[in-house]
Amino acid sequence: MRCFGKIAAACFLLLVVTNGSQAQTPGTPKASHYSLQNGLELVVIPDHRAPVVTHMVWYRVGGADETAGKSGIAHFLEHLMFKGTEKHPNGEFSNTVTHIGGQENAFTTSDYTAFYQRVPRDKLALMMELEADRMTNLKLTDAVVLSERDVVLEEQNMRVANNPNAKLAEQIDAALYLNSPYGRPVIGWRGEIEKLNREDAIAFYNRFYTPNNATVVVAGDVEPADVFALAQKYYGPVKPRVVIKPRVRPQEPEQIAARTVTLADPRVEQPSLRRAYLAPSSRLAKKGEDQALEVLAHVLGGDSTSMLYRDLVLQKNLAVSVGTYYNDSVLDMGSFSVYGAPRPGVTLPQMEAEIDAVLAKVVANGVEAKDLERSKARLIAESIYARDSQMTQARWYGTALSTGETVDDVENWASRVRAVTGTAVRDAARAWLDKRRSVTGYLIKTAKPPEEKRS
Amino acid sequence: MRCFGKIAAACFLLLVVTNGSQAQTPGTPKASHYSLQNGLELVVIPDHRAPVVTHMVWYRVGGADETAGKSGIAHFLEHLMFKGTEKHPNGEFSNTVTHIGGQENAFTTSDYTAFYQRVPRDKLALMMELEADRMTNLKLTDAVVLSERDVVLEEQNMRVANNPNAKLAEQIDAALYLNSPYGRPVIGWRGEIEKLNREDAIAFYNRFYTPNNATVVVAGDVEPADVFALAQKYYGPVKPRVVIKPRVRPQEPEQIAARTVTLADPRVEQPSLRRAYLAPSSRLAKKGEDQALEVLAHVLGGDSTSMLYRDLVLQKNLAVSVGTYYNDSVLDMGSFSVYGAPRPGVTLPQMEAEIDAVLAKVVANGVEAKDLERSKARLIAESIYARDSQMTQARWYGTALSTGETVDDVENWASRVRAVTGTAVRDAARAWLDKRRSVTGYLIKTAKPPEEKRS
Repeated sequence: MRCFGKIAAACFLLLVVTNGSQAQTPGTPKASHYSLQNGLELVVIPDHRAPVVTHMVWYRVGGADETAGKSGIAHFLEHLMFKGTEKHPNGEFSNTVTHIGGQENAFTTSDYTAFYQRVPRDKLALMMELEADRMTNLKLTDAVVLSERDVVLEEQNMRVANNPNAKLAEQIDAALYLNSPYGRPVIGWRGEIEKLNREDAIAFYNRFYTPNNATVVVAGDVEPADVFALAQKYYGPVKPRVVIKPRVRPQEPEQIAARTVTLADPRVEQPSLRRAYLAPSSRLAKKGEDQALEVLAHVLGGDSTSMLYRDLVLQKNLAVSVGTYYNDSVLDMGSFSVYGAPRPGVTLPQMEAEIDAVLAKVVANGVEAKDLERSKARLIAESIYARDSQMTQARWYGTALSTGETVDDVENWASRVRAVTGTAVRDAARAWLDKRRSVTGYLIKTAKPPEEKRS
Repeated sequence: MRCFGKIAAACFLLLVVTNGSQAQTPGTPKASHYSLQNGLELVVIPDHRAPVVTHMVWYRVGGADETAGKSGIAHFLEHLMFKGTEKHPNGEFSNTVTHIGGQENAFTTSDYTAFYQRVPRDKLALMMELEADRMTNLKLTDAVVLSERDVVLEEQNMRVANNPNAKLAEQIDAALYLNSPYGRPVIGWRGEIEKLNREDAIAFYNRFYTPNNATVVVAGDVEPADVFALAQKYYGPVKPRVVIKPRVRPQEPEQIAARTVTLADPRVEQPSLRRAYLAPSSRLAKKGEDQALEVLAHVLGGDSTSMLYRDLVLQKNLAVSVGTYYNDSVLDMGSFSVYGAPRPGVTLPQMEAEIDAVLAKVVANGVEAKDLERSKARLIAESIYARDSQMTQARWYGTALSTGETVDDVENWASRVRAVTGTAVRDAARAWLDKRRSVTGYLIKTAKPPEEKRS
């Protein structure tokens, strides 16, 4: 499964788990954090339950770092990284992983691109050798690039063009971000993907794929000192190709006008609504504000005991589903989303009015103490359960270090959730549930297929 | 008056006149079009009614050519071009123009930046000398740049920040263009203007202010051959500083979802609605399609005999004003707009439903033959009257040559309007009055001032 954060449903689910699980379990060994001479960062998370290891390489580059007009190149390059080097030609890396019973994949978001393998622990050195090789020796021909471009176009077709929900999500992002590159889809606009070529790919590779722009995360049945020695052996000799400058992207102007987006499509069986408010990422939030927003999201719509679910699904019977999520794992401004699907016979405006009434109540009065405590306990518990997944653990650290956060931020997440007060949740709701900084998207069914058109 | 196309009301009026007046009056001498060795283009339009001359320099650079994150630099540099050179220090150029009884000004849009003087005809050589000098010898110090930045910030404050209509227009553009830089305001986002500095200005100047990126338009009591000789003398020696590449900007993806933007402001006395549809510029339109859209705009909402005005203002008494306009004078995708203000007691949705009914009628049935003929005659007549203004004439040519059109396009505009058929108008309405490619903006009054907020 390759995925780009804002689009793929499967990845979204994974990210939800990720967000809810950044806790330091008492007794869990902390991560060790190193920097190599060439600028590469290394995080090692010991996990001795099984003789396996998860090896991830995170590049601090994503869709938001693309040149305008070249959307999709970050994700395209993720694909091309599997195309081989002089020493290890096309297919060899993947075949090796399969042969040793491992798993591998990669994903791209607006802010980072990551590659990983889950393999028997004695194969870690081999994985490092292969990743270090493709960090600097990637070989791309026109034939390889153009044929992979067709693969990406087909992926866009499957994931977005034929998926009304994903199309609406793209349109909401495009309307939510007035200036930030987060308004561009990570997979790219189709018309721009179609024009990407070998020169674009090589330029992007040379600009961003360099050890001083990468974090290696290793979780598993290993000792930090041993992993550090291996990393020095394999990654140490890789020379930085460029100086990496701070990632300063266009920022949002003050948002002042509520927006809506209506997508009508004949394939829609279930109308739905999704509203995204601009909200601070963890990096940009005031101290404790990101955890307060996380708790707010859980109290409002985190599960079947949440305020929105109780009101709209259980009591008033207006919706078949309703929920919220907070995307704080980005470098620049993130978002706080509310979504719902009405029961047959209920219109989107009727459902929306009821959602608005619940949100207005929280903005006015805050949340109830018992809801607050239950949500905090639940978030902390989930973060402990999620430690159970080696992959998920490795992902927290990688995400944090790729979006301006620290190892400390990851390890203190649970204690920061514990410290969230009712006042902080109410203040976060007041500050950020402001329609003037929001886009409301409606997905509705059309009777007939869209007409032919130009644009 | 300095203006940037999308914002200033005064400029907008001027542009409407401009659009409606690109006709070749029988007997009017045609323009002469030259290229100098250094790449500078020259257009001369003889006009012997008075011993004056209008001299304009058009640079093919505007807000859409800025680097993301540096919005406003094109317009800022327009201001800085008045700051003097070694030979003609700060203020000398403007003082000279005033002293000889002339007028001068400048304007910036998404696609071009232009400077002009209207002076006695014997001062043309002097104007050329001064413009050629600042084309290459501009001198900028930190003190000058920073103090002018305050002037621009104050301009933004007056024109946009304190003007709900202009704020809504910015928000509509930001929502209409999903990928094109036309979504950025020409004056810039305030937070980005605040950070522009001398280095940004000099880099922009060196990249775009060069004879091979400029068109000089001279209209007035002059002979083309004499003007050509003068241009060779003054502009000929200016060396190109860079190679100018084709202006390839990010294009719009297929637009698939109708959008709305609601701006609420306590200063709004008259609620209003404005809808912008993505529509082709003259450069991108099919043959005759831009004139068909121009006629459509006139039939629908060009004056008090138009369909929308008759229906909403005269017959149904729902609106105090209603109108349309078509912006085709851009390099990339333009827009077709419909706007209206309801009478007291009429809601925006009521007025909008009636506007939609009129538009639907045109999409279904086209326009009536007598409306078509009256609008065509009116547009052609206006284009002849508008020739009366030397400045307006010079502007057509400059705009055309800065947005991918030709002298021929300007001079054949009226005959192309004459050729528009009812079928072409109906087809243009069907192709482009598609809500999925539109943004509808609502301007409404709020009772209380907006709260304090962060973004």
